[in-house]
Amino acid sequence: MSHFSFETQHTDGHARAGVFHTPHGPVETPQFMPVGTLASVKSLDPEDLSRLGATMVLANAYHLRLRPGDELVRTMGGLHQFMQWSGPMLTDSGGFQVFSLEGLRTIQEEGVEFRSHLDGSLQQFTPESVMRIERNLGADVIMQFDHVVPGQSPHDLAKVAMERSIRWLDRCRIAFDELQATDLSAPTPVQALFPIVQGGIHADLRRASAQAIRNAGDWVGYGIGGLSVGEAKPDMYAMLDVVNEELPTDRPRYLMGVGFPEDLVEGVARGVDVFDCVAPTRMGRTGAFFTSTGRRSIKNAQWRTDPEPLEVGCTCAACTRFSKAYIRHLFVAEEILGLRLLSLHNVHFLVALMRDARAAVQAGTFEGWSRDWLARYHSRKTAS
Amino acid sequence: MSHFSFETQHTDGHARAGVFHTPHGPVETPQFMPVGTLASVKSLDPEDLSRLGATMVLANAYHLRLRPGDELVRTMGGLHQFMQWSGPMLTDSGGFQVFSLEGLRTIQEEGVEFRSHLDGSLQQFTPESVMRIERNLGADVIMQFDHVVPGQSPHDLAKVAMERSIRWLDRCRIAFDELQATDLSAPTPVQALFPIVQGGIHADLRRASAQAIRNAGDWVGYGIGGLSVGEAKPDMYAMLDVVNEELPTDRPRYLMGVGFPEDLVEGVARGVDVFDCVAPTRMGRTGAFFTSTGRRSIKNAQWRTDPEPLEVGCTCAACTRFSKAYIRHLFVAEEILGLRLLSLHNVHFLVALMRDARAAVQAGTFEGWSRDWLARYHSRKTAS
Ligand SMILES: [Zn+2]
Ligand SMILES: [Zn+2]
Repeated sequence: MSHFSFETQHTDGHARAGVFHTPHGPVETPQFMPVGTLASVKSLDPEDLSRLGATMVLANAYHLRLRPGDELVRTMGGLHQFMQWSGPMLTDSGGFQVFSLEGLRTIQEEGVEFRSHLDGSLQQFTPESVMRIERNLGADVIMQFDHVVPGQSPHDLAKVAMERSIRWLDRCRIAFDELQATDLSAPTPVQALFPIVQGGIHADLRRASAQAIRNAGDWVGYGIGGLSVGEAKPDMYAMLDVVNEELPTDRPRYLMGVGFPEDLVEGVARGVDVFDCVAPTRMGRTGAFFTSTGRRSIKNAQWRTDPEPLEVGCTCAACTRFSKAYIRHLFVAEEILGLRLLSLHNVHFLVALMRDARAAVQAGTFEGWSRDWLARYHSRKTAS
Repeated sequence: MSHFSFETQHTDGHARAGVFHTPHGPVETPQFMPVGTLASVKSLDPEDLSRLGATMVLANAYHLRLRPGDELVRTMGGLHQFMQWSGPMLTDSGGFQVFSLEGLRTIQEEGVEFRSHLDGSLQQFTPESVMRIERNLGADVIMQFDHVVPGQSPHDLAKVAMERSIRWLDRCRIAFDELQATDLSAPTPVQALFPIVQGGIHADLRRASAQAIRNAGDWVGYGIGGLSVGEAKPDMYAMLDVVNEELPTDRPRYLMGVGFPEDLVEGVARGVDVFDCVAPTRMGRTGAFFTSTGRRSIKNAQWRTDPEPLEVGCTCAACTRFSKAYIRHLFVAEEILGLRLLSLHNVHFLVALMRDARAAVQAGTFEGWSRDWLARYHSRKTAS
């Protein structure tokens, strides 16, 4: 475990400013991780990510297993070498993706059988096979294989999934330990396995999940899963309050798949250190962009001759050069540069937001900063 | 005309190495211009273009007239400001596009009426209106409005179009001179109007066109149009030989829309200085890439685990970092970064090819260099 460590440098309320050390370098927290599902953060170059200050990137075991295959990635030297990202990486296990394949899958205690969304071929994911896949991919942090249920799931269903995830965590750990002890030529020989707190929107289940995970071992860090999957935001925030009380304070907490600006700020206020979400690039492809006063659409005719950047004062590679008028033109004309510039700005926006949150925690001003930031962000209705 | 000048520094056979000075800086020739039809070189950022050594970029008056409109571009400060390209630019007049609208257009001596390919709206292009559009766009070099016919057109049709293009050149010049004298607040106050040599694949018409253009004035540079539009390659090369004899040697010659590697080398051998073509980006979007031994497709299964770059030794931003295996994966997975990296490589390939041709002319070794280069390029059949 000496390859990984976490220092909390400042706390302010429940918010924390820390550094998470990994075999591929340090990650200052709080931090937003751009999502490179298929070993590419959509439309961006790894160099773009470095330049906008991203330090850790996520990829997805489910998607990479199907295409191009985890063994091929390993043959090519692992994810870092394959996609030319030399910084820290994390792979999601694919639990969320597999359980989203409604109707295409069979869940058993052993694992999940499913049909590929690409070619319909029959696949099986078990805790053991997923550890093998994530070993081959070679991220620094790998997530356990877990049973994910929709955000509004009733207590009984959420309980079954949570308890199964705990049992699968045990199997993941055994497989992980064995691979780490025997498979020494893997792309990243020392990885960290993160457990995932589940339990839907039920406080008792979240508490039980966190406690069971803590009882199961001393983990490098903790994932919080199954949120932002359809439940109401107050429910999500309430669950974060519960989990925050249960997890050890000296380990990083990663809130999975959550990445709208307001959720990041609310999450930091509840002790979360790391986030990821496809939102900034997905929104960029549909013409939406973040500003400090809410979300906007570049398709809006009001920007037709607007000489201002997407956000005045933004230091991203789009805003320091291009007008909204130009980016709107690119988007209307279906030029790839348009969605690329929006994606750049949106990812930069979230990375910079977490940099600002970190500075506020360090200055001991997080409460006021976050209150003002949220008030400003919600001050205008989101434009069409 | 003091804002523009051309020095021929070296000649080697008919090949020339020179510098074309424009209000936005010098262009070393021979030179390949990437095409930014709609004020964006598809999938690339202007910074990419600078980094790979491109110095002059083309945009298209027809496309920009329809979207976002030349007046809007002017309001935004002109093309250079709009698309953040500070180097030399050229706009094509749209003749080629308008005359490609088979069935949608009516040609008269006054000009061409056509329906927009976007919304069917009725538009009229005349020599005068095109000069106004290109004034508003603000490129350094603007092309005359000409009558373009298919490459295999018979003598009579090619003659009509060529003679009309000469009459339209007179009207373009009158309109151009007046705009330059009166419209002093245009984005680029001093522009250069290039005439276009037409005449199809008929040597006598090409000769007559070049002579009529020379008789009409002393031009900053000369366009050679209506080639690479369906005729056989030997016919194109024969026309270049004819035109080479007729044009003044102390002015730059721009061969319009021609941009396959072998055509560039053959063109330089026939006294051409500047080229443009959509091929490198269009091919990039379909998975094709240039190498020194011919064209390849990244979709080919043979690259599945190939750790080599697209071309060993290439110094582009794709080849210095990524394997063919990775780019193939991106392309198969429909990741935008895949076509972007191929486009980057292809544009770099042509820009670097012209840099090498220039060095060969300067060293007095062009004939041997071009023979070897062409033999190597044609040495393998183009892969699927
Ligand atoms: Zn920005
Ligand atoms: Zn290259």
